[in-house]
Amino acid sequence: MTYCIGMRLDHGLVFMSDTRTSAGVDNFAVSKKMFHWQVPDERAITIMTAGNLATTQSLISLLSERSVSEGDRDPSILHLPTMFQVARLVGATLREVIAESSLTGQTSEDQFGASIILGGQIKGGKPTIFMIYPEGNFIEITDDTPFFQIGETKYGKPILVRAYERKMDFADAIKLLLVSFDSTVKSNLSVGLPFDLQIYENDSFSNGRTKRINADDEVYQAISSGWGDALRDAFQLLPSYRL
Amino acid sequence: MTYCIGMRLDHGLVFMSDTRTSAGVDNFAVSKKMFHWQVPDERAITIMTAGNLATTQSLISLLSERSVSEGDRDPSILHLPTMFQVARLVGATLREVIAESSLTGQTSEDQFGASIILGGQIKGGKPTIFMIYPEGNFIEITDDTPFFQIGETKYGKPILVRAYERKMDFADAIKLLLVSFDSTVKSNLSVGLPFDLQIYENDSFSNGRTKRINADDEVYQAISSGWGDALRDAFQLLPSYRL
Repeated sequence: MTYCIGMRLDHGLVFMSDTRTSAGVDNFAVSKKMFHWQVPDERAITIMTAGNLATTQSLISLLSERSVSEGDRDPSILHLPTMFQVARLVGATLREVIAESSLTGQTSEDQFGASIILGGQIKGGKPTIFMIYPEGNFIEITDDTPFFQIGETKYGKPILVRAYERKMDFADAIKLLLVSFDSTVKSNLSVGLPFDLQIYENDSFSNGRTKRINADDEVYQAISSGWGDALRDAFQLLPSYRL
Repeated sequence: MTYCIGMRLDHGLVFMSDTRTSAGVDNFAVSKKMFHWQVPDERAITIMTAGNLATTQSLISLLSERSVSEGDRDPSILHLPTMFQVARLVGATLREVIAESSLTGQTSEDQFGASIILGGQIKGGKPTIFMIYPEGNFIEITDDTPFFQIGETKYGKPILVRAYERKMDFADAIKLLLVSFDSTVKSNLSVGLPFDLQIYENDSFSNGRTKRINADDEVYQAISSGWGDALRDAFQLLPSYRL
């Protein structure tokens, strides 16, 4: 599996993805799941992928080739005028890749499925995030649903639900994402370090700061062990339940 | 779905189950998923069920009928000499129920599937807990894996992993279960209050104390809101991550 979160704050967008891919416990590897495109001062686009690795790599390659090779440049995510149209293109491309794989005789579409988080901003529009399904359709982030998760989403959801605030600064948001990822890593072998992180500041129209967070990252270690201790302390303070 | 936990402590066993059954969001109801049998001073047995309601009700009815009706009294979970043999009987009965349903022409065994947590103690043996799969096979609890979850297990697992200690008293263990259930209820509509609770003290050979915890239970409310506040406070104390 995979774990990715795309989150919208008042200040901008934050993306985090893990890097573990596996086809069984004896066949796992590190693979990037976060991809960036930009036209400086005009647009910045981030895509995170979960699902069949052949599908997602093919999707990213198609999107990238269409943005660099001369003859096949349009339609391209570097030229479309809105994030909505980019989401439509990514959705259509994803559907195309899955349909192609399914033609070989395999019947289970699930096998080739993938989910996508697409975020960014194009001049003239607001920063936004979409979640794109294997069928190619998608939903857009709203104030009511200020973050999207794909992959192994359940372990890390409770802390997001409780601690998210749209006014958070980036440092607190990254802390929140790390706590959510840490809870997931501790409970599920298919999600693993290192984590890829990106922050996008509103109206910057550039990919902004990125970082790969490794297991030996000191702040991550402090958050991970501190969170365990803090949970136990918080737990002690709650009233006990006597029957 | 469902959420049930069976946990072993140094002092005894604790069981908690939710009560929501659903066949879609417009068809849900309250249904008990925790069942008790006892022979005072000789054995106490608890079963919790997750999965297809027709399957689990049929399983419980078969197990119960076989323990009361004269002609069909053996084999019975009230007579078998060890918890291991009880687990074998429950597993065989579960497999039988699923196989019967599948004969009608439906091919997906998943549709009729169910998982079971079986716990208790029979004189001459130790208190123990088994997790029984739809195929009828099962695993027993160990010191390394001191609790079993069935149903919607992911949301509530991180706090169990972090805060469980075998030396906990019952009051703290119930608090831990309530935090785990509360995290699940807050993230998943298919798990709902009230919760059924039972504690079994080692070598008591009686079903012990039970309680149905409703949404208006004051201690539960204090734990639920206190946990949200405590999480946010704990979160504030962690170091922020500056890029």
